[in-house]
Amino acid sequence: MAVRELKITPIKNGTVIDHIANGLALEVLKIIGVQSLDKDSTVSVALHVRSNKLGWKDIVKVENMELSPRKVNAIALVSPTATISIIREFKVREKRPVDLPERILGILRCPNPNCISNQPEPIESEFEVSQRRPVVLTCVYCDRQVDDFLHHLS
Amino acid sequence: MAVRELKITPIKNGTVIDHIANGLALEVLKIIGVQSLDKDSTVSVALHVRSNKLGWKDIVKVENMELSPRKVNAIALVSPTATISIIREFKVREKRPVDLPERILGILRCPNPNCISNQPEPIESEFEVSQRRPVVLTCVYCDRQVDDFLHHLS
Repeated sequence: MAVRELKITPIKNGTVIDHIANGLALEVLKIIGVQSLDKDSTVSVALHVRSNKLGWKDIVKVENMELSPRKVNAIALVSPTATISIIREFKVREKRPVDLPERILGILRCPNPNCISNQPEPIESEFEVSQRRPVVLTCVYCDRQVDDFLHHLS
Repeated sequence: MAVRELKITPIKNGTVIDHIANGLALEVLKIIGVQSLDKDSTVSVALHVRSNKLGWKDIVKVENMELSPRKVNAIALVSPTATISIIREFKVREKRPVDLPERILGILRCPNPNCISNQPEPIESEFEVSQRRPVVLTCVYCDRQVDDFLHHLS
């Protein structure tokens, strides 16, 4: 059996999320929502890969998918170093770092159980980026601060 | 940027767990215990890969690691279709299906909270394989049957 068969081949169309902080690829997978993918899509994950820029990094590749802006924002929260490349016909068509917007809508649950965004009302969570390095968010409804995003992704 | 750079390269030394039932690669990762790996090891996971044998499958590759017999048994419980290849110097040195032994020691917790294997005694869990297709295990201490292994891995 040739070792060649064991390779993970490059993708024809899809998205590569590179420079994910070491150990966080599975969190990125959760954000992407592997369950919801096209039934023909292969997802590849590499954990603990050598990187000049970061020392060690993780990589996620997803076929036949381009990320919604909300998912990109969620990835930016979890790993601000990540870069996103869009692949079409085996070529990198676009490559950019993830970018944290001023406001984060509907990605996180507010940790304050009494916050109006946690009531059975049709109100979406909304946070302001109150600090960037490291990122701290403030709920626009109750002023609760959040800096531990992994546990509050909705 | 060349697409080549996005490839996941074959491994020099390590283990490839192939033919994992579709969707179960992350369970296999948990069994392997990614946290406990050599600090130079890259782990690659491919989810939802086309397979002649299975339709769709998952693959896990781990550098610089050979699996303990206990971990192989745990993988056999979770995905009996899996095959294990040992890679040395880029060559497949050994390839074999996972194999379920007669008895499973210390991999699963007994779901019976009153079972002696769940008391603060130095007694390891032990199950007998009482049925093979699909696999059903019976606790040798309390006779409790288990067929839902994902939730009882210890």
